[in-house]
Amino acid sequence: MQTVASLLSAHRSGSRSLTETVRAVYAKIAVHDDPAMFITLREEADVQAEAQALEARGDTSLPLYGIPVAVKDNIDVAGLPTTAACPAFAYAPERDATAVARLKAAGALIIGKTNLDQFATGLVGVRSPYGIPRNAFNPKLVPGGSSSGSAVAVAAGIVPVSLGTDTAGSGRVPAMLNNIVGLKPSLGLVPNTGLVPACKTLDCISVFALTVDDAMAVLKVIGGFDQEDAFSRDLPVGALSAPPAAPVLGVLRPDQREFFGDADAAAAYREALARFSAMGAVLKEIDFSPFAETARLLYEGPWVAERWIAAEKLLTTDPDAVHPVTRAITEPGGKASAADAFRAMYRLKELRAKATPVWADIDALLLPTAPTAYTVDEVLADPVRLNSRNGTYTNFVNLMDLCGIAVPATVAHSGVPYGITLLAPAGKDAEMASLGRAFVEQASLPLGGSKGPAPELPPLPAPQAAGRLDVCVFGAHLSGMALNDDLKAMGARFVRAVSTAPCYRMKLLPGSVPRPGVVRARAGGGALAGEVWSLPHEGVGRLLATIPAPLGLGQVELSDGTSVTGFLAEAAALEEASDITSFGGFRAFVKTGTPA
Amino acid sequence: MQTVASLLSAHRSGSRSLTETVRAVYAKIAVHDDPAMFITLREEADVQAEAQALEARGDTSLPLYGIPVAVKDNIDVAGLPTTAACPAFAYAPERDATAVARLKAAGALIIGKTNLDQFATGLVGVRSPYGIPRNAFNPKLVPGGSSSGSAVAVAAGIVPVSLGTDTAGSGRVPAMLNNIVGLKPSLGLVPNTGLVPACKTLDCISVFALTVDDAMAVLKVIGGFDQEDAFSRDLPVGALSAPPAAPVLGVLRPDQREFFGDADAAAAYREALARFSAMGAVLKEIDFSPFAETARLLYEGPWVAERWIAAEKLLTTDPDAVHPVTRAITEPGGKASAADAFRAMYRLKELRAKATPVWADIDALLLPTAPTAYTVDEVLADPVRLNSRNGTYTNFVNLMDLCGIAVPATVAHSGVPYGITLLAPAGKDAEMASLGRAFVEQASLPLGGSKGPAPELPPLPAPQAAGRLDVCVFGAHLSGMALNDDLKAMGARFVRAVSTAPCYRMKLLPGSVPRPGVVRARAGGGALAGEVWSLPHEGVGRLLATIPAPLGLGQVELSDGTSVTGFLAEAAALEEASDITSFGGFRAFVKTGTPA
Repeated sequence: MQTVASLLSAHRSGSRSLTETVRAVYAKIAVHDDPAMFITLREEADVQAEAQALEARGDTSLPLYGIPVAVKDNIDVAGLPTTAACPAFAYAPERDATAVARLKAAGALIIGKTNLDQFATGLVGVRSPYGIPRNAFNPKLVPGGSSSGSAVAVAAGIVPVSLGTDTAGSGRVPAMLNNIVGLKPSLGLVPNTGLVPACKTLDCISVFALTVDDAMAVLKVIGGFDQEDAFSRDLPVGALSAPPAAPVLGVLRPDQREFFGDADAAAAYREALARFSAMGAVLKEIDFSPFAETARLLYEGPWVAERWIAAEKLLTTDPDAVHPVTRAITEPGGKASAADAFRAMYRLKELRAKATPVWADIDALLLPTAPTAYTVDEVLADPVRLNSRNGTYTNFVNLMDLCGIAVPATVAHSGVPYGITLLAPAGKDAEMASLGRAFVEQASLPLGGSKGPAPELPPLPAPQAAGRLDVCVFGAHLSGMALNDDLKAMGARFVRAVSTAPCYRMKLLPGSVPRPGVVRARAGGGALAGEVWSLPHEGVGRLLATIPAPLGLGQVELSDGTSVTGFLAEAAALEEASDITSFGGFRAFVKTGTPA
Repeated sequence: MQTVASLLSAHRSGSRSLTETVRAVYAKIAVHDDPAMFITLREEADVQAEAQALEARGDTSLPLYGIPVAVKDNIDVAGLPTTAACPAFAYAPERDATAVARLKAAGALIIGKTNLDQFATGLVGVRSPYGIPRNAFNPKLVPGGSSSGSAVAVAAGIVPVSLGTDTAGSGRVPAMLNNIVGLKPSLGLVPNTGLVPACKTLDCISVFALTVDDAMAVLKVIGGFDQEDAFSRDLPVGALSAPPAAPVLGVLRPDQREFFGDADAAAAYREALARFSAMGAVLKEIDFSPFAETARLLYEGPWVAERWIAAEKLLTTDPDAVHPVTRAITEPGGKASAADAFRAMYRLKELRAKATPVWADIDALLLPTAPTAYTVDEVLADPVRLNSRNGTYTNFVNLMDLCGIAVPATVAHSGVPYGITLLAPAGKDAEMASLGRAFVEQASLPLGGSKGPAPELPPLPAPQAAGRLDVCVFGAHLSGMALNDDLKAMGARFVRAVSTAPCYRMKLLPGSVPRPGVVRARAGGGALAGEVWSLPHEGVGRLLATIPAPLGLGQVELSDGTSVTGFLAEAAALEEASDITSFGGFRAFVKTGTPA
């Protein structure tokens, strides 16, 4: 199975032409033979013409050069109808959605528009007049929704990546059910310009991929501020990195684990926790109740009015044109009062306030992606209740303004794929992806719907949390010393104890309180003990505002050859100062020393 | 007239006992003789007992030691009824509102509960069954509302400070009409625990005072996170400082100035602009239309549903118990749909997005506090329309999540006081107060409702915008040079060109692109040209993350003897590097130089 990485490499080296790639896509579509996957599939000839034009331009450095992509049919692609899986709703968009325009500018080839639960309302993938896309991993199971077609297209190996959307879990549940990666960005990170709204305040465009690296490659292209979208936010996309050595993960208390009787799902979650533990993670049980109550607000509360707004015209003029299940869910939204809406928002504020302390203690929340996996027959027999269950661990995420990634965790003997999702407050997209990547790397799972193994992933740079900077301290900011609490008040977290390269000197600054100044030695010098603390960028500014001359922040070389921002002093100011290098660090000096 | 500052000084020096202060308060209440000012006035004996207990404790360092305070009667004070100016709504709170508890803990003496427009709905002060408080500056005018009683109590010199609330302008309009200061904090900065909601998502407790310093002294006491309040935010209160030398102020375009025919109001605004210009401010005309549309959303849109929720029980069981004007305004709120609410929120998002670029270019928005001042007779004759006009420059503020301060600007020959309001995004409370303070200092206005002059204010520390740091650059970050755009992308704003103290050396860093490194000379050295740029703290972190060794940020001494954070290089790394100090700066070197 081809990934973005493998295709890019082949396209760039010339070992595979874009024409061959496009031909392979259409050949697979024919072999796979799922008439419910695409609502609109482009003519191969049209895509080939685009591929040839791209090759003629010759800019192989484009980040998605020649990568075939499928797009959920609630996202505009100029020239193709947008249906939202409702024929009566269809329109012909004149412009690409911003995310699609960015894909094209990056060299991607849009293959077609994929099926979905109508108006993106549903987590099952069976609520479409265009049929039920076949689950590409286990055909008995529902494909998951609402982004059903986009998920199965990736799992079937037809395209390596696709766009979905995710309001209540539509970018994550189908990922689990098809054994692929579902990246749900922070709200506002990917512009919604050109998206048919489901709940306009909670919608986001999401990415399906076979690997975390591929998903992040797409996010890097489509993420970023768009002044046309009032919901757009100026958030960083970030970059993948090796995860921290001992991430703290919030996990479900045993009494709050709900799998609706699915023992395999329960076991899969336990295994995932064990795997993270083995990787060095610290597991911390949290109280899931505010999250669970928030999840219920989404469909029991007034946000359904947003779905009603999105389909208002049809619901009021031609209600029979709407899928009966979708209609039954959406119609009450037209009856809710503004007072109901505000009351629910008050409750949401309270629930978010309850959840806030949880985030202070953990790097990520680690949850099952969905509590269980239902078959097509089961869902058709009980379409609303089983759908709701699917959202147990996803519905609250956008209401709580979180970002996250769903990754495969295990395949049960029954052939059901189970997955986990890592979640954190908005802006930590790359951190969640990095954790998910490390987790998948420890598993031996087939890639998507294939029996083939996952590709080997390239090594990553050392962890540096997005929006944070590691700062090496040598003096009173060390753990337990006088200024350490100030450092913590600026949001600092301890990373590790370090030793400098053996070329620094520590001098005693003038003043009544002993404080050290570290300078690079003109010759000789020694290794000095320090501590690396991770600070939010904003905290770095606050810290610097408190640092008096002759101290400052520069680059410090460590004993392992890496460099880190750290406290340095101006050499000229300390020519005459006492040299305490021989103590090997300030703590040792304070414990035992007097100036040499 | 006593201010917080003068009373504190007298209490602490012992030149005045708390008993005397309390006696003076009640004596003034008797002389002033406004039966509509307080809804509940405490017995003098009870307050005296509290004052004596406070004196017995002897902790004169309390920040509001013995300061008499009046509290708007929609904020709970244990032991006194809370009426919200609606007798049928009244209840007996068991606990103090958090803000009140903080006042008491800081040594304040609560005198009583003040009158207001019922349910804090109104900007006029005539919508209360407890009568119309008399405007303490000009008795013909309405007192302004909804915080009518709290404003007139301060202007009349009965208490130096009081608590109001501000949802649509209730903490600012009465300040203007009574010639006092009205500080409207950022939403969530002062906890709302114990506040009767008006619009729960938009309410905040505000401060009336005779001086900006007094208002900030109260804000410091009542501001800060409260985990009991889901709307509480962890925002800094900040501190007053001398304002920046050349603040950029957004002002109304002449064609968008609306004073409803009041030529004095128009002249007062022009005078205020001229006074700011004379102070060195840069005036920048902005497009007010997104703000104006937002203002209209507040009463024409679904937020009235929040007011309906607050009074729902009475409106549905005993509607005649509600003031007829309040009832007429509030009742439609019960009929709005959730779809209306979401649609209005979408529009608000769009309007906020339109306003966002405005804030990037200015330090504050400078507006008239109210477009004109109406008499009691005028408002009683036309109660809704004239009230709406009063909110022209205030209604949008909480919907846009701004903070601000209303200060007196001028008194027209007619005897009408006019004021201006300075506004900025949430979190800049102290910056706005500092600007307002500097403005008032340039005026010669009577203090509150008295004929006496304003007290002299103590000097303030040097300006350093809260959350920002000045950084001195010497190389490619200079204006127009290669990395200047990067600096701007981090939110930097040019402050001034500077010269270092004559004790630095500039060396040419190794590498293909010429880059300078500044080091303090061990002896000799020269003065180097640089530029100071103001960066948000977060930008400092981002900047530092991009700085390679041997560069860093330390403290640079300038030619005027002050110090500023700036780029310095490690001396040891540059021993052998070419010295370009003689060029006097990097720009001169690039233009003319080759390494010496």
